Amino acid sequence: MKTSRSGDGRVTGAPGSTSGSRKDGRPMVIVMAKSASPAEIQAVADRVHKAGGEAFVSRGINRVIIGLVGDIDQFATLNLAGMAGVAQLTRISAKYKLVSREQYPHRSIVEVCGVPIGPDTVTLIAGPCAVETPDQTLAAARMAQSAGATLLRGGAFKPRTSPYAFQGLGERGLRILSDVRAETGLPIVTEVVSTVDIDVVVEHADMLQIGTRNMHNFPLLQAVGSAGKPVMLKRGMNATIEEWLMAAEYIAQRGNLDIVLCERGIRTFETATRNTLDISAVPVVQALSHLPVIVDPSHSGGRRDLVLPLTRAAVVAGADGVIIDVHPEPDVALCDGPQALVAGDMAELGRTIENLTAFMGRKPPSWRETAA
Amino acid sequence: MKTSRSGDGRVTGAPGSTSGSRKDGRPMVIVMAKSASPAEIQAVADRVHKAGGEAFVSRGINRVIIGLVGDIDQFATLNLAGMAGVAQLTRISAKYKLVSREQYPHRSIVEVCGVPIGPDTVTLIAGPCAVETPDQTLAAARMAQSAGATLLRGGAFKPRTSPYAFQGLGERGLRILSDVRAETGLPIVTEVVSTVDIDVVVEHADMLQIGTRNMHNFPLLQAVGSAGKPVMLKRGMNATIEEWLMAAEYIAQRGNLDIVLCERGIRTFETATRNTLDISAVPVVQALSHLPVIVDPSHSGGRRDLVLPLTRAAVVAGADGVIIDVHPEPDVALCDGPQALVAGDMAELGRTIENLTAFMGRKPPSWRETAA
Amino acid sequence: MKTSRSGDGRVTGAPGSTSGSRKDGRPMVIVMAKSASPAEIQAVADRVHKAGGEAFVSRGINRVIIGLVGDIDQFATLNLAGMAGVAQLTRISAKYKLVSREQYPHRSIVEVCGVPIGPDTVTLIAGPCAVETPDQTLAAARMAQSAGATLLRGGAFKPRTSPYAFQGLGERGLRILSDVRAETGLPIVTEVVSTVDIDVVVEHADMLQIGTRNMHNFPLLQAVGSAGKPVMLKRGMNATIEEWLMAAEYIAQRGNLDIVLCERGIRTFETATRNTLDISAVPVVQALSHLPVIVDPSHSGGRRDLVLPLTRAAVVAGADGVIIDVHPEPDVALCDGPQALVAGDMAELGRTIENLTAFMGRKPPSWRETAA
Amino acid sequence: MKTSRSGDGRVTGAPGSTSGSRKDGRPMVIVMAKSASPAEIQAVADRVHKAGGEAFVSRGINRVIIGLVGDIDQFATLNLAGMAGVAQLTRISAKYKLVSREQYPHRSIVEVCGVPIGPDTVTLIAGPCAVETPDQTLAAARMAQSAGATLLRGGAFKPRTSPYAFQGLGERGLRILSDVRAETGLPIVTEVVSTVDIDVVVEHADMLQIGTRNMHNFPLLQAVGSAGKPVMLKRGMNATIEEWLMAAEYIAQRGNLDIVLCERGIRTFETATRNTLDISAVPVVQALSHLPVIVDPSHSGGRRDLVLPLTRAAVVAGADGVIIDVHPEPDVALCDGPQALVAGDMAELGRTIENLTAFMGRKPPSWRETAA
Repeated sequence: MKTSRSGDGRVTGAPGSTSGSRKDGRPMVIVMAKSASPAEIQAVADRVHKAGGEAFVSRGINRVIIGLVGDIDQFATLNLAGMAGVAQLTRISAKYKLVSREQYPHRSIVEVCGVPIGPDTVTLIAGPCAVETPDQTLAAARMAQSAGATLLRGGAFKPRTSPYAFQGLGERGLRILSDVRAETGLPIVTEVVSTVDIDVVVEHADMLQIGTRNMHNFPLLQAVGSAGKPVMLKRGMNATIEEWLMAAEYIAQRGNLDIVLCERGIRTFETATRNTLDISAVPVVQALSHLPVIVDPSHSGGRRDLVLPLTRAAVVAGADGVIIDVHPEPDVALCDGPQALVAGDMAELGRTIENLTAFMGRKPPSWRETAA
Repeated sequence: MKTSRSGDGRVTGAPGSTSGSRKDGRPMVIVMAKSASPAEIQAVADRVHKAGGEAFVSRGINRVIIGLVGDIDQFATLNLAGMAGVAQLTRISAKYKLVSREQYPHRSIVEVCGVPIGPDTVTLIAGPCAVETPDQTLAAARMAQSAGATLLRGGAFKPRTSPYAFQGLGERGLRILSDVRAETGLPIVTEVVSTVDIDVVVEHADMLQIGTRNMHNFPLLQAVGSAGKPVMLKRGMNATIEEWLMAAEYIAQRGNLDIVLCERGIRTFETATRNTLDISAVPVVQALSHLPVIVDPSHSGGRRDLVLPLTRAAVVAGADGVIIDVHPEPDVALCDGPQALVAGDMAELGRTIENLTAFMGRKPPSWRETAA
Repeated sequence: MKTSRSGDGRVTGAPGSTSGSRKDGRPMVIVMAKSASPAEIQAVADRVHKAGGEAFVSRGINRVIIGLVGDIDQFATLNLAGMAGVAQLTRISAKYKLVSREQYPHRSIVEVCGVPIGPDTVTLIAGPCAVETPDQTLAAARMAQSAGATLLRGGAFKPRTSPYAFQGLGERGLRILSDVRAETGLPIVTEVVSTVDIDVVVEHADMLQIGTRNMHNFPLLQAVGSAGKPVMLKRGMNATIEEWLMAAEYIAQRGNLDIVLCERGIRTFETATRNTLDISAVPVVQALSHLPVIVDPSHSGGRRDLVLPLTRAAVVAGADGVIIDVHPEPDVALCDGPQALVAGDMAELGRTIENLTAFMGRKPPSWRETAA
Repeated sequence: MKTSRSGDGRVTGAPGSTSGSRKDGRPMVIVMAKSASPAEIQAVADRVHKAGGEAFVSRGINRVIIGLVGDIDQFATLNLAGMAGVAQLTRISAKYKLVSREQYPHRSIVEVCGVPIGPDTVTLIAGPCAVETPDQTLAAARMAQSAGATLLRGGAFKPRTSPYAFQGLGERGLRILSDVRAETGLPIVTEVVSTVDIDVVVEHADMLQIGTRNMHNFPLLQAVGSAGKPVMLKRGMNATIEEWLMAAEYIAQRGNLDIVLCERGIRTFETATRNTLDISAVPVVQALSHLPVIVDPSHSGGRRDLVLPLTRAAVVAGADGVIIDVHPEPDVALCDGPQALVAGDMAELGRTIENLTAFMGRKPPSWRETAA
C-alpha cells in the first residue's frame, strides 16, 4: 500500500505533531460594544499580549475592533468573549490544518492496494451492505466487478439504530470477505465500529470505513489514524462540512493522511428520501481540502430508483468515486435491501460511470487498461 | 401560448373543480389501542358509516386495525384520532391530484411562447437576478442567449429579507424586460410577489415566477392560477416535496396546469452553502408528478464556483432545465452578485449543457435547430 | 387604541423613515487572503472610500484585516466579497433597527383596546382555531373568558397547506367575531392572509395576525404596517430569529411599532411534534428587541397533551403571553381539533397561568382587578 | 446503589433477553397498489404465513390492505416492500420495548447512591464542564452543593470536535472527582467516551454519562449496559426521540434499566443558540417511556443568560432534574466557560428550582429534609 500525493509531497515531516497547529498565525476578530470604555479595550489587549499574542486595535466611529494574531487555541482558553465590553468574537481561522487545501494545494491520491482514489479517476466501490453468506458475498462481488468496480465493500460489523436489527456476522464476515478477495482480487473496504474490534478488522481489511454514526467517535478516529490502513470517513448525518474536516484532522493527526471522505446525505426535514444528499458538498470540500471525496448514492436516498440518477450527479459534480450497494437477491437482504442494485441495474450503472468519467476528462480504471 | 401534454391529454374536463377530489377512494388506516373495547371499535366504525364511508375491521391477535375508504377529507373532520380506543391514524392518500403522476402518467410539456420545458429537452433560462438598467439587462440577455438560453429571467419585483435591501425597479423593470425581449426575441420569466401587482406583471411576462418565500402564499398561488400564463413555482426553502406539490395543486385547481417546478435548495444546518440543493428532489418529484422540474444552481449554492458543477449534476439527475443568474458586471450587481456568472463562465456552461443534453438522450433547443 | 412604551418614548420622530438606517455606523470586517498584494488591499480600501465609508486596515503577521464603518447597506452593493485578494467578509451589524433593543432599551407594551401585552403582564389570548358557527365561536369565547383570557383569537381566513382543506368562512367569519365581541367584550385577534382582504379584516379586527406562512410575504407586512392596528407576527417555521426581526422591521418601517412577536415552533427533523417549540427564542428575542413576545403552545406541539406543559414553560421562560386554541367540541372541529383544549383543560390552564404570573412577579390581568 | 420502580416492578424476569421482543404481536400494515392482482395479494400473504406470521386481508373499494401480526423483525427481512403489487408498508410497532411505557406504565425512579431521579423529585446535578484542577473542582462542587445540588457532574474525558481543543485530564481527573466526593459527599456523574476507558471510569463514577456524540456508539451503549452503574444518556443532537429511546433500549438489553434520559438540544437551522432545546421532548418522552428525563440548559443554549430561563422552563415542563455547568472562574475555564454559572447565579437557580419543585407538587431533595 502506497500513498502518493499528486503534488509536492509536503506530507513529510511530522503530521501527527500538533505543536505547529497552535501557532498558526490566523486571526480572530473581537468587536467591542459601543459602550466599551478605553480601560476595557486595554484589558482585552493586555490579556492577549500576556498570552503571547498580538492584538491590533482599530477604532471606528462608534466602535472598536481588535484583530488577534497568534496561538488561537490558547485564545479560546482566555475567555475573551466573557470580558467586559466585548460584543462579539469571530474566529477566522479554519479549525483543521493537515487536511486543509490551503496548506497542501495539490489534491491527494489515496491508493488502496494499488487502486487509486483521487482527481484523475472515478473509482467504483461496490458490494453488499452486509455480508450474509459466502455465496451472497461472492455473487455480489462478481456483479460489482463485472460492472467495473475495483474495490469491494461489505459490512461485517453493522451499527444499527435498533438493537433488534441484524448486527452483522462479525469476524466470520471478515473471513468471508477475505475469501472473496482471494477469489476476485478485489481489495476490501469494511466498517469498523469499535476500538475493540480494530485489530481483527485491520487484519482482513484493505481500507477501514468509519460510518456516519461514528464520525464523532474520537477515540475510534484516533485508533484508525494509527492503524496503518487507508480510511474512508463518512460524513456524520448531522455534521457540517467543517466538523467533517475536523474529524478527518483527528485521523491525520495520528500520522495517517490516506483518508477518503464520503458524502452520504444529511438529515433534514424532508422525508421523501432517507437523507438529503448534499451534492454541493463535493465541490465545497474539494475547495477546502486536498483529500479525495466520494459519494454514497445508495444510503443517502435509501431507494433503488434514485441510485442511478444520484450516481450520475455525483460523478459530474466532481466526485472521485462512488460506493454502491449491490445484492444478488435484494428481496431477502438482511439489511437495506430496498436500495441495493440488482445485476442489470449494476451493469447499466457501470456503463454510465464509464461514459461520464470520460466526459469529466478522467481516466478509466486501470484494471480495464490491463485487461485491454 | 399553447400547452401540450406528451400523454393522453386527460386534462380536459374541469381541473378547477374539487368535487372529484373528495371521493377519491383512497384508504386511511386506524390502529386501535390494545385496550380498545368492542364498543369503542364499533363507535369508530359507526361514525365512519354515518359519514358515508366504509370501515373494514381487521382483528389481529392483540389489536384491531380499521381500514377506511370513502371521502377522506370528510374523515379528517370526524376527529377519529380523538375517539376513545384509537391509537394511531395513518392517511394513505396523496394530498394532491391534478398534478399527480398517478392520475396523469405521462410527463407534461409546458410551452412558453413556443419554448418547451419538459422531458424531451433541457431548457436554459438565464438573465440577471435583478433588472437594474436597460444596458445591464440587454447585456445579460445577450450573454444568456449566446450561451444557448431560450428564456430570459429577470426580477423587477424582488422579495428581500431585509427591508433595507434593494427591492427592484417594479413596473419600470418590467418595461425594460419588454424592450429586451423585443430586441432579442427571448420570452420573459419574471417574479410576481403580490396579488396587487399581478395585472401589470401579466401584461409584460411570458411566464410568472413564484419565489421560494411565496410558495405558501395561497392567495397568490390562486391568482396566478387564474392569470392565463405559465407559472414557475419555486420550492419553499422549508417545504417538503409533498407541500410543494400541494402548492402546485392550488395553481392547478384554478385551471392552470402550465406549471414548472423549480428546486432551489432547502434550509438545513449546513452553512457552507446558502441552501442545500436537494438534487434527489428531481427524480423524486418526477416519479410523483407529471409536471416538469428544473433546478436553480445559482440561488441554492449562492456561490459562483458552484454554479457549473451543480448545473452538470442537475442535468444528469434528469432536470428538464436550469435557471441561471448572469450579470455583465457582478462586482456592481445590486442583488446576489457573488453568484452571478460572467461571460466566459456562461459560455462554458452553455457548452456543458449541450453535451450533457445529448448524453441524456434529449434534443437541443429548437432555436439551434432553426439556426442550423 | 393607545400604544405606550414602558421606557423613554424615543419612538417619537419618524419611525417609518429609513434614511437613518443607512448610516448606522456599525462595522463590517474583511479578511484578506494570505496572498493578497498591497495593491489589492489598497483597491478594497479605495472602493470603500469612494462610496463614502471608512476602511481601517490592520496588518497581522500573515494576513490583513480591514474594518469598514459607514453605510453598510451600500457596502453590500459594492461586491467587496468578489474583489481580488478578499478571503472573507463578515457583517457585524444587525439588520434591523426600529425593533432593536439596542436602539430602544426599554421593553415595549402593546395595547389592544386597552389590554396590555408586555413585560408587566402575561396575557392569555384564546379562542377557536377557525370560526365555524356563531354558537361554536361564542361557546369558545366564553370558555376562554372564564379561564382568564382577555383577547379572543379566531380565524376567518385560513391559510391551508392543502387546497382541499377548509379555508375559513371569510367575511362571514369576521361578522361572527364582531358579534361575539359585542356579547363578551373581548377584543379580536384574527389573521389576514392577503392584501386584498386587508380592508375588511381591519374593519372587524382589533389586532391583525400574520401567520407563519406569511412571515416572508413582504407586501402583506407593509400593508399591515400601514393599517393602523396592532399586529401579531408569527415566526416563520423556517425563519431564523434574525429574519423574524427583519420581518418585524418591515412593519415598523411603515410607522407601526405596535408589534407582538409570536413563537410557534420551527421545522426540524423531529416528527413526534408538529413543529419544535423554540423556547429559547423567548429570552433571546427579548435581549435583541424591545417588542413583546408571546408563545403559541397549541400549534407548535399540535397535540392537546402538550398544551399545558408548554404553556407553563412559556410563562416561566418569560413570555409576555400565550395564545391557545379552544373548542367546545374538538371532536367535530373543522381545523386542528386534536390540539384544541376543552372546557376543563382550559380552566386548569387559566389557573396555572395565574399562579405562574405571580411567580414571575407580573400583574394579573386588569379585568380581574376590576372585578375584585 | 438500588433501583426501585415506582410501579409494579415488572422489570423482574430477563430484561437483557431479546427473544421476547421478536414476537411482540404488534401489527404492520401493507397497502397494495390499485393495480395489484389477486395473485400478488396472495403472494404477500403466503410469504408472511411461511415466516410464521398472520396476514389479515381487508378489501376496500379500490384497494386492499393487509395487516400483519407476528414477528415484525423477521418481517423486515422478508422485503415485503419490494414485492409486486405492494404500494406502501407502515410499521406500527414501536422499536423499543424494555424502555417503553406501554410495557411498564409506572414511571421509574433511578437512584444514584441513594439520590433519586424520577417523578417525585427535581434533582439538581451541577459541577464544572471539565475537571481542571483540584481547587477548581472542589470550589465548583461547593457552589453546586450550597445551591441544592445532590449530584456532582464533571468531565475527565472530553469529546471535542476539534482535535486541537482541550481533551480532559483523563484518569487524573477521575481521581480529583473521587477526592471531591470524599470531601463533599456528592456522588459523581462523569462521561465515558470509549469502551477502552470504561473500567477506570466505572471505578470512580457513580453514574456514567453518554454524551450527545456517542448516542449512536452502540458498542459503548452495550458496554455501559453491562457496567453495573446507572447511566445518563444524552440525546444525540441529530436524533429523533424514537432513535433516542432505541439507544436506551441498547443499554436496557444488557440488563441495565437504571437509565436517565437527558435532553440537551437538537441541531436546527437557528444559529442564535448553540442548539435548539426541544422542551416538548420532556412530556413527549414521558408519555412514551417510563425512564426519568432531565434537561441540560447549559449546553443546549450555550449562553449563560439562557441557563436560568431554560431551567425554569424545564422544571415546569415536567423534567425530573436539570444538569448545570458551574465554574468558580468562568473567565479562565478550559471548556465552555461562556455558559457556566458563577456563584450568585447558581444560588438564584437553586432557589428557583426549590420554588418550582413545590409548584409542581414534587418533594425537595432529601439532603434538605435530613438537614432540617
